[in-house]
Amino acid sequence: MSARTDVWQAKFERLRSNKLFEILVISVILVSALMIGVNTYPLPPLATKAIVVMDWGITLFFLVEISVRFLGETEKRRFFRSGWNVFDTLIVVVSLIPIEDSELALVGRLVRIFRVLRMVSIIPELRTLLNSLLKALPQLGYVMLMMFIIFYIYAAVGSTFFAEINPALWGDIAISMLTLFRIMTFEDWTDVMYETMAVHPLSWAYYLSFIFLSAFAFLNMIIGIVVNVLEEEHQAQAREEALAAGEPTLSELRDEIRGLRELIQSRA
Amino acid sequence: MSARTDVWQAKFERLRSNKLFEILVISVILVSALMIGVNTYPLPPLATKAIVVMDWGITLFFLVEISVRFLGETEKRRFFRSGWNVFDTLIVVVSLIPIEDSELALVGRLVRIFRVLRMVSIIPELRTLLNSLLKALPQLGYVMLMMFIIFYIYAAVGSTFFAEINPALWGDIAISMLTLFRIMTFEDWTDVMYETMAVHPLSWAYYLSFIFLSAFAFLNMIIGIVVNVLEEEHQAQAREEALAAGEPTLSELRDEIRGLRELIQSRA
Amino acid sequence: MSARTDVWQAKFERLRSNKLFEILVISVILVSALMIGVNTYPLPPLATKAIVVMDWGITLFFLVEISVRFLGETEKRRFFRSGWNVFDTLIVVVSLIPIEDSELALVGRLVRIFRVLRMVSIIPELRTLLNSLLKALPQLGYVMLMMFIIFYIYAAVGSTFFAEINPALWGDIAISMLTLFRIMTFEDWTDVMYETMAVHPLSWAYYLSFIFLSAFAFLNMIIGIVVNVLEEEHQAQAREEALAAGEPTLSELRDEIRGLRELIQSRA
Amino acid sequence: MSARTDVWQAKFERLRSNKLFEILVISVILVSALMIGVNTYPLPPLATKAIVVMDWGITLFFLVEISVRFLGETEKRRFFRSGWNVFDTLIVVVSLIPIEDSELALVGRLVRIFRVLRMVSIIPELRTLLNSLLKALPQLGYVMLMMFIIFYIYAAVGSTFFAEINPALWGDIAISMLTLFRIMTFEDWTDVMYETMAVHPLSWAYYLSFIFLSAFAFLNMIIGIVVNVLEEEHQAQAREEALAAGEPTLSELRDEIRGLRELIQSRA
Repeated sequence: MSARTDVWQAKFERLRSNKLFEILVISVILVSALMIGVNTYPLPPLATKAIVVMDWGITLFFLVEISVRFLGETEKRRFFRSGWNVFDTLIVVVSLIPIEDSELALVGRLVRIFRVLRMVSIIPELRTLLNSLLKALPQLGYVMLMMFIIFYIYAAVGSTFFAEINPALWGDIAISMLTLFRIMTFEDWTDVMYETMAVHPLSWAYYLSFIFLSAFAFLNMIIGIVVNVLEEEHQAQAREEALAAGEPTLSELRDEIRGLRELIQSRA
Repeated sequence: MSARTDVWQAKFERLRSNKLFEILVISVILVSALMIGVNTYPLPPLATKAIVVMDWGITLFFLVEISVRFLGETEKRRFFRSGWNVFDTLIVVVSLIPIEDSELALVGRLVRIFRVLRMVSIIPELRTLLNSLLKALPQLGYVMLMMFIIFYIYAAVGSTFFAEINPALWGDIAISMLTLFRIMTFEDWTDVMYETMAVHPLSWAYYLSFIFLSAFAFLNMIIGIVVNVLEEEHQAQAREEALAAGEPTLSELRDEIRGLRELIQSRA
Repeated sequence: MSARTDVWQAKFERLRSNKLFEILVISVILVSALMIGVNTYPLPPLATKAIVVMDWGITLFFLVEISVRFLGETEKRRFFRSGWNVFDTLIVVVSLIPIEDSELALVGRLVRIFRVLRMVSIIPELRTLLNSLLKALPQLGYVMLMMFIIFYIYAAVGSTFFAEINPALWGDIAISMLTLFRIMTFEDWTDVMYETMAVHPLSWAYYLSFIFLSAFAFLNMIIGIVVNVLEEEHQAQAREEALAAGEPTLSELRDEIRGLRELIQSRA
Repeated sequence: MSARTDVWQAKFERLRSNKLFEILVISVILVSALMIGVNTYPLPPLATKAIVVMDWGITLFFLVEISVRFLGETEKRRFFRSGWNVFDTLIVVVSLIPIEDSELALVGRLVRIFRVLRMVSIIPELRTLLNSLLKALPQLGYVMLMMFIIFYIYAAVGSTFFAEINPALWGDIAISMLTLFRIMTFEDWTDVMYETMAVHPLSWAYYLSFIFLSAFAFLNMIIGIVVNVLEEEHQAQAREEALAAGEPTLSELRDEIRGLRELIQSRA
């Protein structure tokens, strides 16, 4: 690497971590978010044109910004190891593709909407929040598997017995699972129940047992998360306290006493 | 300040902190609250007149009470530093403005309703409760920002794809956000879903992912509050215990043992 | 008190605390509960007659049982100090009043239904559970007062602005409070909102702010209970542990070390 | 037992605990679950035939698998002591019965659906999860009894007063309990209330008191579970910590100090 590129890289790195630059980026993201919102209202032709122009401006700004961040990175390889950088680059690249087709126009609009997510990638606190959310998910893996098994079995039973009563709700196993999710949210679940009770009078047992099982599994999931979070907090707190106070452990105290005993014994 | 005003101020201060005076103020607030309730029923003309007279009486009483509290304050500047005093004064001042206009009559009724909030300003326990509620809010700032971003993105996607299906629910981004809030409360959300699934059969994924994301973020918010509250309680308790029992710390114990060692060594 | 009544009293006391007698009482309560359930079905005349006879049998049994419990009490005054004893006596006395009037017949049926509550008075674990529930209520006094103030203010505002739109939901302050409770349970709350939004387009702010405030106050209430329960558990546990293990406190350890120091110093 | 069967038994035991064999079993269960799902869709005759053949294949595989597990067990009696083994055997045996009757065909389909539950019996983590769920239930026994009493009393009162208003909701005590469960889930509960309020204007008190009582009992149940779980976690953690760190207890420290004192005294 020549000395010249080094100078440029250092400049970009300084720019990247500049507080003012960050505020500018957040402002542009906010403007692009506002534009998306404004776009859902009926607009006069002039405003529509202005938005198209501004949209290109924003795309260009994002292109420059991502370039600055890329060029400011000392090790180029590390740049794409961060999922957020990959996401940002993707959003910019797709925005650059000119779209004429009406089919692809929708994709273009979606990409512009996902730009708002850059808010998460740019504000460190939100990034930490999302990471902690994602980290909590796998711990719940087995409870979620259990819940899926409950759903699958009840959906299979439901579509076996109720498919002829109301195919729109119990037609096949996928539709039945959607209906069961609806029942879990208590959304008009009695209408579904009364309909099948007219044919199978005992089908209330199916609904009640499902509600109890899923509520119980759901409760278990929540308790699992709460216990996890509390425990981590507890440990972090205990560690902090121990460090801050310089408090000796009971073992250290014992060693002090034993040292004393040896001292007395050696003295004899 | 002359000696005479000093005497008056001391008198007002005593009156202000008088328990009987406080009970009188609470009673008058209760009467004004009852009057507001009674006023929502159809009343004979005589009762309406009586209420108008009583209303003036209450306004005058509040005027006197706030004057007593103001004159009883040793430092006049401090009086308006408390948000509650400002709120009380505002309510009294607006009540005094004579209103003839039918437009303003509504404002007058609203001000009379907000008088009930004086209950919070007069009972210290309620004031503490409200303060602790307000203090908990900013800690949740980033989770609420995250939730707003989720709402905004889903609302933008929703109004892009579903606006033509049902403009009353997905017409623009503001209406879409209201519809999403409705879906979050599970209120007839399947009706909304079935409507869009008739056009976009895969739109169930939109609703389910939104419910999961918002429920997850909401859960996170609650856990955040619970952990916060528990931690504060824990610390307060630990501090109390340590103070109450006069229990020595482990460090103090270690120092005792080391002192002993020095004693033995110096003895040699 | 003569020696003879003393003998009888001792007999009754033994009977009262007899395990078999308790099981018999529970069985009779269960039978009376079953009869209430059976009575809600259409019955042949013979069954109705059998139930009338059995009902008298149960009333007589309860009369005998309460007499045994009263006579078995050494101090008669203490008997009526227990709320449960008063409740049991009342149920029996009202059951004994012969009712012909159709109006009073309903009261008679209600009294028979409340007999099931004797289950709570007879099983100690249920009695403890109920007591602990009741004990938790007053601690929540101020949060509930706050919630009532929120409801009252919103109901007053609601009946001021929406009474003419739908008197069945917002006619007066009492109806409005019922409607607000419905909104708090999310039961068809959007129907209520869309109706008023047709006249006042900004009324969504009224509903959303109410939902947030009441949900927040409700959450606070729950957290209050949880923290309370956890704290009590924590203290009870700490006390038990300290007692069980006979673990010395840090103060006792310090005293041991100081004793040692004095010993060494006196030795010099 | 001859040496020959011993050799075979050891072979089966090795096969049973083979990781590859376990993965094969899980795969076959997954295939059978998929087949159940596919079966709820309309299928061409060929696919239906293929499914019948595959179903026999799966039944045979399960028969072989359960035999391997049975023969691999050193003590045959212990095999049927595990509820899961009994469940697995039952599922296989019932699958083997040839069914022609259309009535029994449904039973056959149900048995095939319950095969998915073998997922729980084969994956140890899910088995532990289910066991811990079941273990938590009895601790809640008294709260659930209390809740049942609340439901029973309210159902009796409801069917006494409202049976003539709407027999479909309040006809007898069983239907009333179902209606009350519906009210507890807030599902269209105001429709039920408005209907009875037209006849008994004060019946809102019935619904509100029920909602408060059941919500309160429910809350108590959840808190009970949470406290239980947290306590167990706490104890397990404390035990682990104590073991891991080899931390001396305060009693041990006291004994060390006392030993020191004796040493000094004996030295004199």
